[in-house]
Amino acid sequence: MENEKLMMQRHTMSHVLAAAIKALYGDDVKFGIGPAIDNGFYYDFDMEKVLTPEDFSAIEEKMKEIIAENLDMTRKELSREEALEMFKDQTYKAELITDLPEGETISVYYLGDRFCDLCRGPHIENTKFLRSFAYKINRVSGAYWRGSEKNKMMQRIYVYGFADKNELKDCIRQAEEAKLRDHNKLGRDLGYFTTVDYIGQGLPILLPKGTRVVQLLQRWVEDVEYQKGCVLTKTPLLAKRELYKISGHWDHYLDGMFVLGDPKDETKECFALRPMTCPFQYQVYLNKPRSYRELPMRLTETSTLFRNEDSGEMHGLIRVRQFTISEGHYVLRPDQLEEEFKGCLELAKYFLGTVGLLDKCTFRFSQWDPENKNNKYEGTKEQWEVAQATMKKILDDLDVTYEVGIDEAAFYGPKLDIQYKNVYGKEDTLVTIQIDMLLAERFGMYYVDTDGEKKLPYIIHRTSLGCYERTLAYLIEEYAGAFPTWLAPVQVKVLSISDKFLNYAKKMENKLFEAGIRVENDERNEKIGYKLRQSITEKVPYAIIIGEQEEQNGTVSVRVRGSKDTRVMSVEELISEILGKVASKVRD
Amino acid sequence: MENEKLMMQRHTMSHVLAAAIKALYGDDVKFGIGPAIDNGFYYDFDMEKVLTPEDFSAIEEKMKEIIAENLDMTRKELSREEALEMFKDQTYKAELITDLPEGETISVYYLGDRFCDLCRGPHIENTKFLRSFAYKINRVSGAYWRGSEKNKMMQRIYVYGFADKNELKDCIRQAEEAKLRDHNKLGRDLGYFTTVDYIGQGLPILLPKGTRVVQLLQRWVEDVEYQKGCVLTKTPLLAKRELYKISGHWDHYLDGMFVLGDPKDETKECFALRPMTCPFQYQVYLNKPRSYRELPMRLTETSTLFRNEDSGEMHGLIRVRQFTISEGHYVLRPDQLEEEFKGCLELAKYFLGTVGLLDKCTFRFSQWDPENKNNKYEGTKEQWEVAQATMKKILDDLDVTYEVGIDEAAFYGPKLDIQYKNVYGKEDTLVTIQIDMLLAERFGMYYVDTDGEKKLPYIIHRTSLGCYERTLAYLIEEYAGAFPTWLAPVQVKVLSISDKFLNYAKKMENKLFEAGIRVENDERNEKIGYKLRQSITEKVPYAIIIGEQEEQNGTVSVRVRGSKDTRVMSVEELISEILGKVASKVRD
Repeated sequence: MENEKLMMQRHTMSHVLAAAIKALYGDDVKFGIGPAIDNGFYYDFDMEKVLTPEDFSAIEEKMKEIIAENLDMTRKELSREEALEMFKDQTYKAELITDLPEGETISVYYLGDRFCDLCRGPHIENTKFLRSFAYKINRVSGAYWRGSEKNKMMQRIYVYGFADKNELKDCIRQAEEAKLRDHNKLGRDLGYFTTVDYIGQGLPILLPKGTRVVQLLQRWVEDVEYQKGCVLTKTPLLAKRELYKISGHWDHYLDGMFVLGDPKDETKECFALRPMTCPFQYQVYLNKPRSYRELPMRLTETSTLFRNEDSGEMHGLIRVRQFTISEGHYVLRPDQLEEEFKGCLELAKYFLGTVGLLDKCTFRFSQWDPENKNNKYEGTKEQWEVAQATMKKILDDLDVTYEVGIDEAAFYGPKLDIQYKNVYGKEDTLVTIQIDMLLAERFGMYYVDTDGEKKLPYIIHRTSLGCYERTLAYLIEEYAGAFPTWLAPVQVKVLSISDKFLNYAKKMENKLFEAGIRVENDERNEKIGYKLRQSITEKVPYAIIIGEQEEQNGTVSVRVRGSKDTRVMSVEELISEILGKVASKVRD
Repeated sequence: MENEKLMMQRHTMSHVLAAAIKALYGDDVKFGIGPAIDNGFYYDFDMEKVLTPEDFSAIEEKMKEIIAENLDMTRKELSREEALEMFKDQTYKAELITDLPEGETISVYYLGDRFCDLCRGPHIENTKFLRSFAYKINRVSGAYWRGSEKNKMMQRIYVYGFADKNELKDCIRQAEEAKLRDHNKLGRDLGYFTTVDYIGQGLPILLPKGTRVVQLLQRWVEDVEYQKGCVLTKTPLLAKRELYKISGHWDHYLDGMFVLGDPKDETKECFALRPMTCPFQYQVYLNKPRSYRELPMRLTETSTLFRNEDSGEMHGLIRVRQFTISEGHYVLRPDQLEEEFKGCLELAKYFLGTVGLLDKCTFRFSQWDPENKNNKYEGTKEQWEVAQATMKKILDDLDVTYEVGIDEAAFYGPKLDIQYKNVYGKEDTLVTIQIDMLLAERFGMYYVDTDGEKKLPYIIHRTSLGCYERTLAYLIEEYAGAFPTWLAPVQVKVLSISDKFLNYAKKMENKLFEAGIRVENDERNEKIGYKLRQSITEKVPYAIIIGEQEEQNGTVSVRVRGSKDTRVMSVEELISEILGKVASKVRD
C-alpha cells in the first residue's frame, strides 16, 4: 500500500536524522525513539547542545549529504546479551531492550556505517530511494522520555516529510495557517486567557475577554435549558471518599482524581475533588421519594470539574485540570428514553450549530470492551447489550452517522460522543450523551410507578455545549479570534480623531453602553490610523470614528471588521444593527 | 453587678443539673464541663443512657427536689495529687486537672453531699437562693469533648435559666419563633438545600429552589457591578504551593486550607484549594504592564472558595466548607482610595438594602493587634498605622458608625466588616471591605505613573453581597421563607379546581412561563383546598385558581400570599403586576 511505503520512508528518514545529529554533535548523544507520524517523523535526543531553529538548516544539509551517500539499510538480529552489549552506552536503548518480553526477536538496522539503531523495521533498502523525498524540520520541543514527567526531558525534533514536494508545501502552508488560528497563541495574544507557572499547568486564568465570552455562553445555555424544562442545581465540588465508593469512581477513576488526604488511610476522613457531577446531582433526586409524575426530571448544573491529568497532556484551554460545563442528568422512565435522548441530541446540535462548530463535528458511538479486561466496566454483559442495543436503535432511528469506538464507553454505560478537531487535527470530545442503566440502583434511586410499584429509572448523562474553556478554544480557532458580534467581548471601539472630540466620543460611548452594547473608548492621544489598526488587530467587530463632521452632523462613521468601507449613520441606527445581530445570534 | 449574680446562679444550677443526672442515671456517669451561657447553662455527660426529650421532665423534677433540699455549696482547695485521687474514676476531670498549669489553685465545690465538682467558682452559697430561679431544659445535643472531633462525643444538655419567670417565658417564645425561621430547618423543609452524610459536613447541596435564588442574585450582582465599571474574571480554584508562599497564605492561613498532597514534602508538587481570590486575580493585573490610565482597575469574580473549617463549626448554609461570593480587587492609585472605598461601601449598601438585610447590619472596623504576637500580620507598624489611619479617616468622612475589633484584621490589612446575626443571635460577617498596602509589592504589581515612574498601587479587597449561600440563609430567616416576588424561586402556582380545567390551566401556565415568570402547575387530581394549603405552606407569592367561571370569562382568580381575598383579573394584568414587582425589586 502507498501509505505503508510512505511510513517506511519516514521511518528510514528518522534514522537519517539521528545519523545527522550524531555526525554534527558527537558520539555522546543519547538516542531515544524515532517513529514515523502523520505528517512526517520525529526523533528524541538527550544531549548537551540545546537546539534552536538556527541549527535546522545545518541538520537538513547533513541529512541531504547522508542520503546522497547511497547507504544501505542492513538488518541484523541479535541475542539479548549481544544487544545489551552493543547499546551499553545508550541508556535509553538499553532500557528498551531490558523491557522487551522474553523470546521477542531483537533486531538492529545499520545505516551504512554511519548509525546503528535498535529497530523492528521495515525500512527502505537504500537511501538512494529517498533522493526525491521532501522534508523540512518543523520544530524542536521538550519531551519526557516515555512520556512520563518522572523521566528526563529530551529534545524532540519534529520533521515534516512527504514523498512529493507539493504535499510538503501544502502541509507547511496548512501548519502556518493553523498557527495563526492556534488558540494557545492567539487566545493569549488577544487577551482571552493566560497561564502562570506558580499557579500550575492546566489551570488557565480567564482574562476579562475570555470570562465575558464564557459568561455569555453560560447564561445562554442555562436559559435555553430552562426553556427546555431543565431545573438547575448547585452541588459541592468535593465529597468524602464514601460517595465515590458508591458511585464506582473510587474503583474506576481514582487515578484521574485530585485527592485531599491519603486515599489509602481508611482511618481518616478523605475528600476528593469531583471529576464528574453525577453522584452529586443524584442527591437532588434522592432528596425525597419520587413519583412517575415527576419524570422525566431533567437536572442540569453549571458544573466545575477537576481531572488530575498528566502534565504532558495539558494544552491551552483544551486539555485542562479544571473546567466548567453544563452537565445534566435526566432521570427517566424506560418509555421516555428515546424521546429524551433525541431531545439531548437536538439540544447539542442547536448549541453547536448556533456557535458555528457543528459542521465540523463527527459522531462516535463509544462502546464497552466485551472482554472487560481488568473489570474496567460495571454491570453484566446482558445489561451492556441491552444498553448498547437501545442506543444503536435510537441512533439509527435518528439517522445519525457515526463511527464505533470499542472500549471507549464510560464505566457505567455507552456514549454518543460529539468530536471536534483543533487546528492541528487533534481530536477531542466536545459533547457527550450517555445511557446509564446501572448507577440508579447503586444509589437506591427509585420512583413509584402508576401501578404503585417502586422501580429503577434510566439516566441520561449529557452535556450540551462542551466545557466552556474548550468551546472557547475552538471558537477562537474557528473564527481566528474574530468572534461573531453577539459573542464578541468588545463589540464596538470608539475612536476619536483628536482630543477635541472626546466629549462627543464619550456621549456615543455612553449611548452604546446604556443600550447594553459592550464598548471600549480609546481616549489616548494617538493618530486615528494607529487606533484603527489596533482595533483591527484586536478583531473588534465595529469601530466608530469620531471627528468634526460626525460631531457637527450628530453621526458616527462606522468601519465594520473586515471591510474598508466607512458607513455614516446615527448612533441609534448602529445600536439597532448590533442589537439585531445579538438577538439573531448571526455569524457575521 | 446584676449580670455577675445571674451568671453565678446559672453556674450553680449547672451543678444541680449534674447532681440530678447522677441521681437518675447512676454513679457511672462521666462528667464533662458545665458553664453558664447567654441564656442559661449546659452540662456535658458521657453515659450509656441516651437522653431524649421524654426524659426532660423527670430531670427538671429531680433538679427541683435537689434545690428544695437547701444544700450548701462548699468550696475546698486540694493539692494536685489529692484532686487526681478524688477524680480517679472521672477521666475528663482528671484530664482537666493534669492540664492545669503548675502552681494553679485547684478547688472543688460540694453540693451538699449529692455531688462534688472540680470548679473554680464562685457559686451561690445555698440552693435555697435558687428557689425562684426559672429554668427549662431546652435540648440535648451531641458535643465532642473539648470541641475536637478526635475526642468522644458526649451528650450536652442545654437549659434556659433566668432569675425571673417572665424572662424565661420571653426567651422560650423568642426561641420558638427563631426555630420557625431557622434556615437550617425551614430551608430544608421548603426544598432550598439539603446535606448528605457521605458527601460531608459543610458541603450543602443546593436544590433547584436554592439554586434559582442564587442564580438570580449572582446575575444581578454581576450586572450591577458591570454597570459600576467592574470587569469580570474567572481564575482557577486551586494552585501550587508556590503561589500561596508569595501571597503569604502558606505562612498565615495553611490550617484553613484544603491541601492536595503533603504540604511539608517540598520535593513533590503540592496544590491547595483557594481560600481567597486575591493571589489569583492579581495575575490578571500582572498579565501585562499597566499604566496610570488603567486605574482604578476594578476586577471582580463570581468566586468559589474553600475553607477547611472544623466539623464543630459547620452550620447549615452559614458556616460551610465551600462557598461562592462576588469577590473584587480594585487596584488603585493612592489618590483614588477614598472615592473607591466609598463606592464599595455604597455598592454593598445598595445590595444589602435591596434584598432587605441592611437594616439589621452593624459595622465593625477590624484592626491588627499592635503586639503582633506569633507574627500573625505582615508588614511594619508604620504601614499598619498608615492603613488604619486612612481607613479611620474614610469611615469618619462617610459617617459610618462602627465598633472596633482589635486583632481581627486580615493578615495584610485592616477591614470594614458588615456583620449580621442569625435568628439565634450568632453574628457572622456578611460583607468585608479591606485596604491592602502590602500585597502589591509581594507580587510585583506596578503601574507607570504620569511622571513615567513605576509605582506600587493600593488594593481594596471587597465583597458586595456576602457569599451566596450565607445570604440565602439570612434571606430565608429574614422572610421566614416567604421571599419577595422578584426573588421567589416559584412565583405563581396554577391550581385547577378539577381535571376539566387542565387545558385552560395549561394555557395560563404557558402564558406566564413565556412572559418569563416562574410558574408551577399543580395538575394533581386533588381538592382545591388541599392544593391551596400546599401553595401557602410553600410560601409561593401568587396562587391562581382555575375553575368554570375563570375559563368562561377568560380570567384567573388570584390569591396573594398572606391574604385571604381573591382578586379576579386577566392573566395579562397578573403578568404586568408581577413583572412590575420584579423590575422594582420591591419587598412585598
